[in-house]
Amino acid sequence: MSPSVKPVEITKVTAGSSQVKPDLMAVEEPLEIRIGFGPIGDRTQKSLSVTMRTPGHDYELATGFLFTEGIIDSYNQVESIKYCEDVGKQEERDNVVRVELKPDVKLDMKKLQRNFYTTSSCGVCGKSSIEAVEVTCARIQDRIKIDKAVVHTLPDKLREAQQIFEHTGGLHAVGLFDLSGKLLLTREDVGRHNAMDKIIGASLFKGEIPLANTIMVVSGRASFELVQKALRAGVPIMAAVGAPSSLAVTLAGDLGMTLMGFVRENSFNVYTGKERIS
Amino acid sequence: MSPSVKPVEITKVTAGSSQVKPDLMAVEEPLEIRIGFGPIGDRTQKSLSVTMRTPGHDYELATGFLFTEGIIDSYNQVESIKYCEDVGKQEERDNVVRVELKPDVKLDMKKLQRNFYTTSSCGVCGKSSIEAVEVTCARIQDRIKIDKAVVHTLPDKLREAQQIFEHTGGLHAVGLFDLSGKLLLTREDVGRHNAMDKIIGASLFKGEIPLANTIMVVSGRASFELVQKALRAGVPIMAAVGAPSSLAVTLAGDLGMTLMGFVRENSFNVYTGKERIS
Repeated sequence: MSPSVKPVEITKVTAGSSQVKPDLMAVEEPLEIRIGFGPIGDRTQKSLSVTMRTPGHDYELATGFLFTEGIIDSYNQVESIKYCEDVGKQEERDNVVRVELKPDVKLDMKKLQRNFYTTSSCGVCGKSSIEAVEVTCARIQDRIKIDKAVVHTLPDKLREAQQIFEHTGGLHAVGLFDLSGKLLLTREDVGRHNAMDKIIGASLFKGEIPLANTIMVVSGRASFELVQKALRAGVPIMAAVGAPSSLAVTLAGDLGMTLMGFVRENSFNVYTGKERIS
Repeated sequence: MSPSVKPVEITKVTAGSSQVKPDLMAVEEPLEIRIGFGPIGDRTQKSLSVTMRTPGHDYELATGFLFTEGIIDSYNQVESIKYCEDVGKQEERDNVVRVELKPDVKLDMKKLQRNFYTTSSCGVCGKSSIEAVEVTCARIQDRIKIDKAVVHTLPDKLREAQQIFEHTGGLHAVGLFDLSGKLLLTREDVGRHNAMDKIIGASLFKGEIPLANTIMVVSGRASFELVQKALRAGVPIMAAVGAPSSLAVTLAGDLGMTLMGFVRENSFNVYTGKERIS
């Protein structure tokens, strides 16, 4: 497998000097996700997506992607996952993952068009984007609570767990925490949607979806896409170090998620679902 | 047109208090980009992409996207651009842009598959991703120079120009500067690739592509995709406030671009093309 960090020689320029020195970069490489499906004897192979990702946890990424895109509904539908061996060179083999679905899995061919946020029937606007999400995501209806003192501690805990960021300053992170503020899992990636798909893929492997009683923390901003992925996994509370977008807030509100932004050691903003903050 | 900023009621929580107050959010809405092409009397309409973007400068975004994806080579190939009037509701009409290409424009149908970074012939790896870029991007070969004192000033100038960020804290920005450090153009968007496509679209409208003698400054990290887009527009120097990825550095080096990261008031790192820094 390709490494997540790579050495580089940089020239560090300051007001007074210029110095050549070794440094580290976060690795970015394409990952192609392929699926095999259909009855035995009549299998179809299809390339679904190429995403630019940081190598590592690729099986999680592929499985999480299939789940958050609504192509599979559970890990039970997966027969096997492997790097593609019939690809030419070794460095390409590390970048193609094939997920074989069980023969009885029925696929919605429209979803394979990779056009999640719109269909010709529902139009192209924020409202229809949200309706498209509601098809695959259940409304969050629990009555859990989280102490606000716990919320304040989340960004620092996530940052401490960011091993690759520590070396490179170059990665988005997503962390999954329990309600007491304990870090359960963290993933880093050059693409923030990949980091979340990896967390969700890992949770699928462990049979822990839906992720009730958890908080998903993202190191940057909260976009529509990130909220959609978290909702798909049943996450009741999401906290972003950065700002949320308008559509992220509307989606979180419509589906009953608690969404917080600008989470800091001494303050944070609650956009939706404030009844879960005590 | 939809606004770029939207009001929201938040609950601001601090260690000692909790207060409901009005705030502003960056707007995120889908934009569908459609093209019309082919000879008169036999035109084809095709939906190319749906991107989540901040409304504003949508024609720039659509045109810049077509150019950076290699679907058009110049603005001369565009017959007209308009919001789609045959879409149902008003709010959807604001989110669908149709670009009509001139009848004599020949399209590479493979490029319409929206799979820029890989083809079945060249494989899936960093090297083949770079080869795919080299097909549409010329190597930068100028001998321009930029004073390092100018580089130090760029992030502050970009931040000052970020009007929407000022209100919401929620947007990526891309700024185009001349070699003396004067800001020529800035765009903000929830998607950083959209902000750069808008800059490039605006430059196409003004007939200023290739963007020789300019510096492209990005408010976050430098990914492969952002370097690819800047190279496609002929930008010789790119400066990121955040870290670059491994593939961004390799691509910039292979195509002769100067790439800087972690640009601050008192220091920055040069990854490639340091001969342009004086």
